[in-house]
Amino acid sequence: MREFKKLTPYRDAFNMMMEDIKELPDFEEIPLDEALGRVLAEDVVSPIDLPPFNRAAVDGYAVRAEDTFQAREYNPVELEVIDEITPGIESKREVTNGRAIMLMTGNKLPKGANAVIMQEHVKRERNRIYVLRPVAPGQNVAFKGEDVRKGEIILEKGRILKPQDVSMLKALGFRSAKVKRKPRVGIIVTGDELIEEFNEEALERGKIIESNSVMLKGLVRQYFGEPHFYGIISDDETKIREVLERAKRECDLVLITGGSAFGERDYAHRFVNLLFHGCTNKPGRPIGYGERVFVMSGYPAAVFAQFHLYVKYALAELVGANYEPGKVKARLTSKVSSSLGRHEFVKVLYEDGKATPLKKKGSGIISALINSNAYLEIPEDSEGYREGEEVWVTFY
Amino acid sequence: MREFKKLTPYRDAFNMMMEDIKELPDFEEIPLDEALGRVLAEDVVSPIDLPPFNRAAVDGYAVRAEDTFQAREYNPVELEVIDEITPGIESKREVTNGRAIMLMTGNKLPKGANAVIMQEHVKRERNRIYVLRPVAPGQNVAFKGEDVRKGEIILEKGRILKPQDVSMLKALGFRSAKVKRKPRVGIIVTGDELIEEFNEEALERGKIIESNSVMLKGLVRQYFGEPHFYGIISDDETKIREVLERAKRECDLVLITGGSAFGERDYAHRFVNLLFHGCTNKPGRPIGYGERVFVMSGYPAAVFAQFHLYVKYALAELVGANYEPGKVKARLTSKVSSSLGRHEFVKVLYEDGKATPLKKKGSGIISALINSNAYLEIPEDSEGYREGEEVWVTFY
Repeated sequence: MREFKKLTPYRDAFNMMMEDIKELPDFEEIPLDEALGRVLAEDVVSPIDLPPFNRAAVDGYAVRAEDTFQAREYNPVELEVIDEITPGIESKREVTNGRAIMLMTGNKLPKGANAVIMQEHVKRERNRIYVLRPVAPGQNVAFKGEDVRKGEIILEKGRILKPQDVSMLKALGFRSAKVKRKPRVGIIVTGDELIEEFNEEALERGKIIESNSVMLKGLVRQYFGEPHFYGIISDDETKIREVLERAKRECDLVLITGGSAFGERDYAHRFVNLLFHGCTNKPGRPIGYGERVFVMSGYPAAVFAQFHLYVKYALAELVGANYEPGKVKARLTSKVSSSLGRHEFVKVLYEDGKATPLKKKGSGIISALINSNAYLEIPEDSEGYREGEEVWVTFY
Repeated sequence: MREFKKLTPYRDAFNMMMEDIKELPDFEEIPLDEALGRVLAEDVVSPIDLPPFNRAAVDGYAVRAEDTFQAREYNPVELEVIDEITPGIESKREVTNGRAIMLMTGNKLPKGANAVIMQEHVKRERNRIYVLRPVAPGQNVAFKGEDVRKGEIILEKGRILKPQDVSMLKALGFRSAKVKRKPRVGIIVTGDELIEEFNEEALERGKIIESNSVMLKGLVRQYFGEPHFYGIISDDETKIREVLERAKRECDLVLITGGSAFGERDYAHRFVNLLFHGCTNKPGRPIGYGERVFVMSGYPAAVFAQFHLYVKYALAELVGANYEPGKVKARLTSKVSSSLGRHEFVKVLYEDGKATPLKKKGSGIISALINSNAYLEIPEDSEGYREGEEVWVTFY
């Protein structure tokens, strides 16, 4: 077994990886109802104006504004109501001077009218209204195209679709969305020490229940991908080579855990042409990448950090997602120290603007992942932060 | 048509609603692989210690620490290597004075040993090692139960499961999770002005493409629920009553949009015993709630605000989720004014610790939902915030 001769600085490794990953061209057309969380494959241009017509922004009466200029509470202006319309119905009448048409919020503004009086500002008596306040031209009218203009780019390629985006697409008349195909992500877990299920006797003998695959599946789903699990592979050169070759053929990205160090039984890096192997990030130093394969650690906390430091960005790039981890400011409730020369991934519990670094650390500690909800990164040239200092954290 | 006589303050309405909503007792046992985002139905107690045994935290040699106390770079201590073990294998030998067993990270600490020397700190010659540095008892050992203790509550009821949680459950030997059943949420959309699909001629006549249902479906999915859409119902008293009764029977929660004001054609509130109707929140004032039915606005931006101010909390309560909207601090890039007596839901674009209030406002504006990514709330007694002030915002 030998050590990494030289660690690649995290930022350099990250950049090499990102330069190698290319956006996949594949897209698919899917019903809007299934589009949540998917990534737009092209800009969406609005085919219509929204609203599609000038419409009433309140319930009331469509009028010619100039008719109301003299209207006062104690000197109301009298207008004749020539029509009443219900939602979605267009009046066939025209508003001329001295006349009004009763309508509801959202109704198309009738011909001739240029303003709407709120119903609270008139008194109604049979087919007459008494206008108590003046309205200006355009008042209480939502204008054609004021929300969205026909021809406008309304959602950009790379957009990660939210409920409100899908609603907009629907409102503009789309029935489906052109989204990127989900990258197929192969997950391979290696290690003779791993067992699939609880077995007291095996645990006694020094085995460990494998738990990386289910975490990686979840993370891949969270970040645009479709996981495909190749199972637990024993530390056998031939078996690892075979499954790795199959996964490379079948998938857009491959994550292999447990074979990332330079142990005699860590084979993965021998079969992949790695651009880097062994980086300054901590935990998760023995990470390697090449040919769309990530060679990752065996410990869950290290795998988790490697995913957030590298893999999620690779996945975003594969689908061309406009993804930026949302960083928020937090005040540290205690000091965090970091080794010079290490890019540290520090787990914190964020609450009410404060970030508390987790006490239990180490790649082998899973509970720290559960008791934290965010991380901060401390680059190589920093020895850490003082208590009370403001730092940027990212949720997970 | 009449106006709301008196608006219920948002906080009072919210509290009435929350007092009425009761957690559903139903749960289901599902495979871990499907548990992402689901809500735990009971506390999870660890059935084992994690690690299940004392184990090596580094690759190296298991020794008795006292054997190494005199070891120095230029005065190494010689030990005999009596065994070498590979991952998941337990040594059958015992470490006695003057002896060592070679092992790898994660290996069970052999009998008799109380520390591990990193391989970098020894020189190996055939079955001998020369120890160059002393190790203290316990050094480089991960102790049984240091991550999780047997009998410890590791995840609490109400936890919204993340990939790392599922990984922990797996590591503890669980194969499934007991989670709350997803509440079935009926969605009813009403309005004669609504059409299902693009139709230029109909839009000309004053119709609108219905887009609330697809937004609500997405929001319901985001917040623990399973949507069930009852379609677009015309403004017809009998039809609305029928579908509402059916939805109340079939669902745990019902959202009906478009019939929430007191218009002649707004029937929904007549068939539901509402605890409140018409509140100070803006937009979305004409909201009503009673008998697990939300009577909501017709405009997307109002529905969206109503969902975030009321409905998501109701859904969290139904599943007993430990849900708190994650509020983050942001500095306002411009002034926000708010009417006294209104609880305002202000859409902002959060970027790099700054929040920019959207210029386009109004219930009828969908684009503002798309161009923002968070909201801030301004309570009734505030007239708003100054430019540069720090506010709490919540992402959506």
